[in-house]
Amino acid sequence: MNQLKIDIGTLLGKIHESMPLVHHITNYVTVNDCANMTLAVGASPVMADSVHEVKDMVSIASALVINIGTLNEATATSMLVASKHANEKGIPLVLDPVGAGATPYRTQTITQLLQQANYSVIRGNLSEIKVLAGLKEQTRGVDTVTVFDAASDRKAMQVLAKKMAQKLNATIAITGAVDIVTDGMRVCFIENGRPEMARVTGTGCMCSALVGAFLSVTHDPFLAAVAAVACMGIAGELAHENLQKHEGNASYRNRIIDAVYHLTVEQVAERARITAFL
Amino acid sequence: MNQLKIDIGTLLGKIHESMPLVHHITNYVTVNDCANMTLAVGASPVMADSVHEVKDMVSIASALVINIGTLNEATATSMLVASKHANEKGIPLVLDPVGAGATPYRTQTITQLLQQANYSVIRGNLSEIKVLAGLKEQTRGVDTVTVFDAASDRKAMQVLAKKMAQKLNATIAITGAVDIVTDGMRVCFIENGRPEMARVTGTGCMCSALVGAFLSVTHDPFLAAVAAVACMGIAGELAHENLQKHEGNASYRNRIIDAVYHLTVEQVAERARITAFL
Amino acid sequence: MNQLKIDIGTLLGKIHESMPLVHHITNYVTVNDCANMTLAVGASPVMADSVHEVKDMVSIASALVINIGTLNEATATSMLVASKHANEKGIPLVLDPVGAGATPYRTQTITQLLQQANYSVIRGNLSEIKVLAGLKEQTRGVDTVTVFDAASDRKAMQVLAKKMAQKLNATIAITGAVDIVTDGMRVCFIENGRPEMARVTGTGCMCSALVGAFLSVTHDPFLAAVAAVACMGIAGELAHENLQKHEGNASYRNRIIDAVYHLTVEQVAERARITAFL
Repeated sequence: MNQLKIDIGTLLGKIHESMPLVHHITNYVTVNDCANMTLAVGASPVMADSVHEVKDMVSIASALVINIGTLNEATATSMLVASKHANEKGIPLVLDPVGAGATPYRTQTITQLLQQANYSVIRGNLSEIKVLAGLKEQTRGVDTVTVFDAASDRKAMQVLAKKMAQKLNATIAITGAVDIVTDGMRVCFIENGRPEMARVTGTGCMCSALVGAFLSVTHDPFLAAVAAVACMGIAGELAHENLQKHEGNASYRNRIIDAVYHLTVEQVAERARITAFL
Repeated sequence: MNQLKIDIGTLLGKIHESMPLVHHITNYVTVNDCANMTLAVGASPVMADSVHEVKDMVSIASALVINIGTLNEATATSMLVASKHANEKGIPLVLDPVGAGATPYRTQTITQLLQQANYSVIRGNLSEIKVLAGLKEQTRGVDTVTVFDAASDRKAMQVLAKKMAQKLNATIAITGAVDIVTDGMRVCFIENGRPEMARVTGTGCMCSALVGAFLSVTHDPFLAAVAAVACMGIAGELAHENLQKHEGNASYRNRIIDAVYHLTVEQVAERARITAFL
Repeated sequence: MNQLKIDIGTLLGKIHESMPLVHHITNYVTVNDCANMTLAVGASPVMADSVHEVKDMVSIASALVINIGTLNEATATSMLVASKHANEKGIPLVLDPVGAGATPYRTQTITQLLQQANYSVIRGNLSEIKVLAGLKEQTRGVDTVTVFDAASDRKAMQVLAKKMAQKLNATIAITGAVDIVTDGMRVCFIENGRPEMARVTGTGCMCSALVGAFLSVTHDPFLAAVAAVACMGIAGELAHENLQKHEGNASYRNRIIDAVYHLTVEQVAERARITAFL
């Protein structure tokens, strides 16, 4: 438990030292926030989605983040090509299945990506992850409809999450009121963050961007996912404390990124609320 | 008049209660602000523009916002398909004809959209709305060249606006120094807002996003448009009062969204400057 | 030297007076910041990239900014068409070769643009400009790997920059720790700015947007580039001084745009650190 916090702090330092290049193929809604979040944590973002260059770009990157927020034919192809190439080159991959289940097109594209490439970490809400794992559910737009009551039924959630991770052959990070990260063996519940984060567009995307940065400096996807989810939650808390009078969700967005920019090993050690079953 | 303010307050409450899903097919310049504005007013945004999914997405939405800010062949097709499907499903539509008249391509695309689908509300500046109504005018980029002097010639404007609404068979919201909303019968002049809002990119787009949110909770497009335009103007005033020393248009953008996030029924009642001819 | 500062102040005033329309074909990562930056300096932005309208749009603009940050087949074609048309119409062009050298696709596209159109100003980091000038170098994503040590080897840099400008037949603005602007004859070193600007995505793009605004009001591309680079650097300094406790790169972004919004002739005169070899 304490070891986990120490490990997160170590990774944070490693990102700042090495400034890894993280390649994103992502949506045009939250792309700017994802770039600034990547810079905030100390990494270097590159956003490139043309099929004519994604193989070259991923080859010089330390990690690849795939986010299907605003999917189209061109980017779906690029995601597939880049993902397969990343696998060949041994470059770790994050998948953010935004809105999986909301439309057949999203579900089909995700299914194809999962069939043809291996993702180190898949981060989404419970509804999206359930769709990926074949537990059908109607996603409402990009937001989840399932109440993730990990508090009241944590044991059941632990069993379910492990099964889904095993089925998807990846570390999964399910973010919600309580976050859960599992690689199918190890499980972590993370209780940082604020409910107001749901009123900021792209907090999920930004969390996935952080996973990409952490994956660049560790070979343990589980640890990378726990670190990203914990840092995002802690930043959400710090940013909320820093909110001034009259500030709402737009300022909160900026303050969350700002909090990651200033995040210290000490803040992680003091604030991370992680319950680990290793 | 007072009834209008009460109605706006009621709608604001309804959005927060029901958190309606608003589907946007919009430009990549102000898309993030539109998403955060939708969240600020209490609704849930989904941005999706692939022709492979817009029909599915609009089917689960409470309103559809079409914004042609950065038009291309793919999105123009998606806008047409989504608009027609929304009509079939009885889902209300907002059209933001950004830059109509600036290029033949924009004018043609808009004409095609208007011929093949019915829009509940069309929101634009005077120059754009005139182009749509067939009163030709050269639009300068995305900004209007016409001085909207509703103050000095309000009667003429009232007559003109009604005619245009009747011709377009829609509620039109013409925003400028003084805003005017009409469904061809009823007319409202709204005198909220600040001139500095013109120095923030996307205030028009964000206003259209608000129309989408309000349309989700009322069957009266006129009321939805009045509510959105008034709330946007009031937020512009509140945000301006909250500006700190050295803050300019970037901070103003955030503070406008923040002001909508905190907007109360009382603020609407106190501040709305609406002159109604019902 | 003092004359340069006076000229910058004069141009700043001219932008505010004439509110020139600046057409951008740019990336979807920093497009919103580029639009708000264009508004901040007093110009009017229009972002349009469809091949069906770029010729019409550029015809009504005072300058065209081409930024290849997120290139694809459609926008590459539009950039070529718009650039050639701008040349025919005598409308000045800015080129921001984001990530040139990072992938063959970017380098090839840039090469094609340079072969078929004339750019008044090319703004990039040293790595990108070297690639354009045929001095091969591997660009790491969108960030430079070359340490631009103009401080220690300013003479060599002056000779190199002049040669590159002559080869590219354009004014080049190389931004880094020390900025250098040259038209192949005249050279300026500009020592404004803050290292923290590298932690904000799009500061380079925003600087190119400023070049577009300044090009709209002068026939001297060298002066336009010096003005833009100096104003960007000064804004970076002012914004840094205005940062509040806990504010990081997201707030810094807003404060940089805000600083340009409030930028005065006096601030330029007091703060610009320009060493000119005219």
